[in-house]
Amino acid sequence: MPQSGDARWLRIAMAQLNMTVGDFEGNLRKMLEAVGRAKEQGADLLTFPELAVCGYPPEDLLFKPHFIDGNRRYLEKLVEASAGITIVAGFADGNDGIYNAAAVIHNGKLVDVYHKIFLPNYGVFDENRYFRPGDKCPVYTIVGVGVGVTICEDIWYEVGPANVQAYAGAEVIVNISASPYHFGKGEAREAMIAQRAKDNGAIFAYNNLVGGQDELVFDGGGMILDEKGRLLARGKQLEEDLIIADLNVAAVAWPRPKLAKVQPWTVTRATLSAKPFITDKPSLSPHKVKPKSLYAEIYDALVLGTGDYVTKNGFKKVLIGLSGGIDSSLVAIIAVDALGNTGVVGVAMPSQYSSPGSISDAELLAKNLGIELLTVPIEKVFQAYHDTLTEAFKGAKPDVTEENIQARIRGNILMALSNKFGWLVLTTGNKSEMATGYTTLYGDMAGGFAVVKDVPKTMVYELARYRNHRSGKEVVPSSVIDKPPSAELRPEQKDIDTLPAYDLLDPVLKAYVEEDKSVEEIIALGIDEEVVRRAARLVDGSEYKRRQAPPGVKITTRAFGRDRRLPITNRYQGG
Amino acid sequence: MPQSGDARWLRIAMAQLNMTVGDFEGNLRKMLEAVGRAKEQGADLLTFPELAVCGYPPEDLLFKPHFIDGNRRYLEKLVEASAGITIVAGFADGNDGIYNAAAVIHNGKLVDVYHKIFLPNYGVFDENRYFRPGDKCPVYTIVGVGVGVTICEDIWYEVGPANVQAYAGAEVIVNISASPYHFGKGEAREAMIAQRAKDNGAIFAYNNLVGGQDELVFDGGGMILDEKGRLLARGKQLEEDLIIADLNVAAVAWPRPKLAKVQPWTVTRATLSAKPFITDKPSLSPHKVKPKSLYAEIYDALVLGTGDYVTKNGFKKVLIGLSGGIDSSLVAIIAVDALGNTGVVGVAMPSQYSSPGSISDAELLAKNLGIELLTVPIEKVFQAYHDTLTEAFKGAKPDVTEENIQARIRGNILMALSNKFGWLVLTTGNKSEMATGYTTLYGDMAGGFAVVKDVPKTMVYELARYRNHRSGKEVVPSSVIDKPPSAELRPEQKDIDTLPAYDLLDPVLKAYVEEDKSVEEIIALGIDEEVVRRAARLVDGSEYKRRQAPPGVKITTRAFGRDRRLPITNRYQGG
Repeated sequence: MPQSGDARWLRIAMAQLNMTVGDFEGNLRKMLEAVGRAKEQGADLLTFPELAVCGYPPEDLLFKPHFIDGNRRYLEKLVEASAGITIVAGFADGNDGIYNAAAVIHNGKLVDVYHKIFLPNYGVFDENRYFRPGDKCPVYTIVGVGVGVTICEDIWYEVGPANVQAYAGAEVIVNISASPYHFGKGEAREAMIAQRAKDNGAIFAYNNLVGGQDELVFDGGGMILDEKGRLLARGKQLEEDLIIADLNVAAVAWPRPKLAKVQPWTVTRATLSAKPFITDKPSLSPHKVKPKSLYAEIYDALVLGTGDYVTKNGFKKVLIGLSGGIDSSLVAIIAVDALGNTGVVGVAMPSQYSSPGSISDAELLAKNLGIELLTVPIEKVFQAYHDTLTEAFKGAKPDVTEENIQARIRGNILMALSNKFGWLVLTTGNKSEMATGYTTLYGDMAGGFAVVKDVPKTMVYELARYRNHRSGKEVVPSSVIDKPPSAELRPEQKDIDTLPAYDLLDPVLKAYVEEDKSVEEIIALGIDEEVVRRAARLVDGSEYKRRQAPPGVKITTRAFGRDRRLPITNRYQGG
Repeated sequence: MPQSGDARWLRIAMAQLNMTVGDFEGNLRKMLEAVGRAKEQGADLLTFPELAVCGYPPEDLLFKPHFIDGNRRYLEKLVEASAGITIVAGFADGNDGIYNAAAVIHNGKLVDVYHKIFLPNYGVFDENRYFRPGDKCPVYTIVGVGVGVTICEDIWYEVGPANVQAYAGAEVIVNISASPYHFGKGEAREAMIAQRAKDNGAIFAYNNLVGGQDELVFDGGGMILDEKGRLLARGKQLEEDLIIADLNVAAVAWPRPKLAKVQPWTVTRATLSAKPFITDKPSLSPHKVKPKSLYAEIYDALVLGTGDYVTKNGFKKVLIGLSGGIDSSLVAIIAVDALGNTGVVGVAMPSQYSSPGSISDAELLAKNLGIELLTVPIEKVFQAYHDTLTEAFKGAKPDVTEENIQARIRGNILMALSNKFGWLVLTTGNKSEMATGYTTLYGDMAGGFAVVKDVPKTMVYELARYRNHRSGKEVVPSSVIDKPPSAELRPEQKDIDTLPAYDLLDPVLKAYVEEDKSVEEIIALGIDEEVVRRAARLVDGSEYKRRQAPPGVKITTRAFGRDRRLPITNRYQGG
């Protein structure tokens, strides 16, 4: 513990943990372990993420009264373990409505419960569906320091509970979050929190959940910024961490300036402790983890999201169709990084249209990764479909139907292996394909988790190059990176026969899907009119496919899935 | 027009129309036609449903500024057609935020805009995602009568804008709705509106949207109840209608009693007209459509939802795999009722496990319905899969894998015919199967629309019997109704080998899925513990399948889909 004549200090510990929805027992175990470590380190205050007890987001499980009761019982077990420390932990509070709540626990007692005031109901969030908003802004005195407690969204607005608390005397604003990842979000959070800290002249201690939950990845990256917005501590991104820091509140101005605006919330105050329980504290080394580079961050988010989906759903192995193309190669490497090479099985399913290069590329990749590779040729089944359907097709010309049959045979083979051996199938379609519908429903879309579903094709290449660079060798063979993309479902087929080139297409898709720009607005950016109109038409026409797609990791500001809710039945053409 | 010395009269017309999301042109055409008819009938006031201009629910289309602009431009065209009448029409208002709005149009001018105050954000609704709430309660004087305008949810609460408006002088409360169907909802609406009318001493004129939109069916059934809660008029259920009635407001008490409670909203007033435009009015016959019986209502909802999904998405024909079982038989009849027999193609896909009775039952059904029946045997393809997978399966024992392969072959054949001929595939799985996961992903779940997805198996039987009764003959062969349910994917297979009997299972599923009861609570109802535990386990374990299911018509209080949002990754076992 630093010593200073006139300084006042709070030692805070923030446990950014990887929780699992509905796993009260497992979540509690992790929390108890962190309580032990925080006490060892002499922490005065320990925080856990938003809804830590029950996991985030529990969605409609919240409507089950027995789920709320269960989460409350496990909170009690945390309270019992809180002798000699103050804890702030997220849970679902079910008294008179449901609240997204923070338990304030002190020395064996549940002292107070804070209710989240700002409930996000946009993007992937549906919090108005579940929660009532709180109306109280508590300020707690902990070891003589004024501490305000807030939950996630609460601090994303200029005027909010942190503002009220700071003006009412809080020197430290604690925030417990479950803030999902998209690339660049860590920086945006830090800039926002720095501004709040400066505006309110208070230290902000931000703790964020870690881990994958269906389509979301929570990326941790907890941080503490002082009253001038300067970084005091930063936790790991995309990994669990226990961030401990000593906060000197002597520099936080006192008395607080007046509150400029009338606020609709009530300030409450409670004194928990005047002095620390533990005075003989081990010294701390600074905890400032360097932020990851852009592609490292995205790549690691995909690894975490995939690994958590697989293991939290009880699978030990995954199965991936390896075409020798860039998408399946990247997915295989991500899977190996998440699960180890013994956790991944590849299957090559060559047809008469597969190029020799594709087969050798798949083999080389499997060798580079050290994974098992099965080979199941599809020609015999394809021939049987052809024979079986000849009469029904009555001499109609070959078209995309025959291409889809091949894709669906591969889907069936993957699912048959999945059913037989209990392996989860990972699909390999990227965001550019999902957007344009350049994919076969029940074919290449068949599987449990779509790893790169939110990764545009151009970024798939960047991530493959990044991953090779990280290893210092060609894990993804250069032949895979260099060849033109092809579905290989008919002779000499190339993606570019059907779609605009991906470097033209991807910016259009971003503007149309993520930014709600109209066709006219995108054309006005100087992009070829025919490319824009074709892309928009393809996006609009493939909503029905996306509705039946497996979940996958969100990495952009707007992923397909709950983040973007469009009707299938939709005659709007002005888009 | 009735004549009476001291009576004051308002002639109201309510156009309950079948709108299409995003079809500004088509929706306007229908509205203009209704304006013409209402004027012919001398209506003083004409109402259109909630968001009539753009369709309901437009979901994330609302985030596209050009969509809002488009809907506003089409509203202007309605305004231009409003000479000599007053109109209340739903549209999306994009001034300073987005509002679920009612345009109040009088004699060629947009006079005012009402903003919906209560925004539903539960069940299938996400209105907080899009809309800001209004804060004004307008009362308009139309032909000397006080009229309050409200939108859907606004009248579902005791204290709300209608209450404020009635106390401020409104004698008639107009409500424009887009209220989705579930069975029994019509009665619930009528009881609720009757209570509001009595409580507020005002006439309530309720107009509801008609038609299918993805998973929802809007069932019309507009009604007018007087200030004592007595029925003055009722429109057709599940069909378009123009309900016209003369409202005598002389009996509505004046002066209005005081408002009991302080309300947060502001009353606004505007006088539109003191006297009718048209004085020489044709006489009206009473418009009181008799409500449908329970099974007629459900059946017709399925027909409307299916027909609208097919035609609004631009399909002319549907394809259905006919197994000779009760589910596919019912779906085929619904499809024929929606699209005519030339709009439906059946395909029988027999295997070595198909009983002779199944094949003849499918043939008899197709004959009864007068639909084309293709026959595509799957044995040859199944044999080819078997040969192709022998090495990969390395002598593992036959299990559910081989059953799923057969179901997926059938899925592929259906999709191949769909791709080749442009027919939409209707799937045939019922709610009991969807709940328990007794269905094959990409197999029998493969298709564009799942007609009976929300119909429990026991109700599938009731609806088949009802439909036979309606025809006065066996459209569904009695052999189909009488035989024990079987997937016919292995010798002598029966559903009951895997699932509890449906008459035991369905009540458990209702309690668990629709009522959020815990396993313990359901057991306490006296249901066999093993049945309850097994059903709950099956429901929890098949969320991943449902996530990839096609949409289907909601007919119960809680359908799978947007109505029930559970995480796939979920360790909660206490359910």
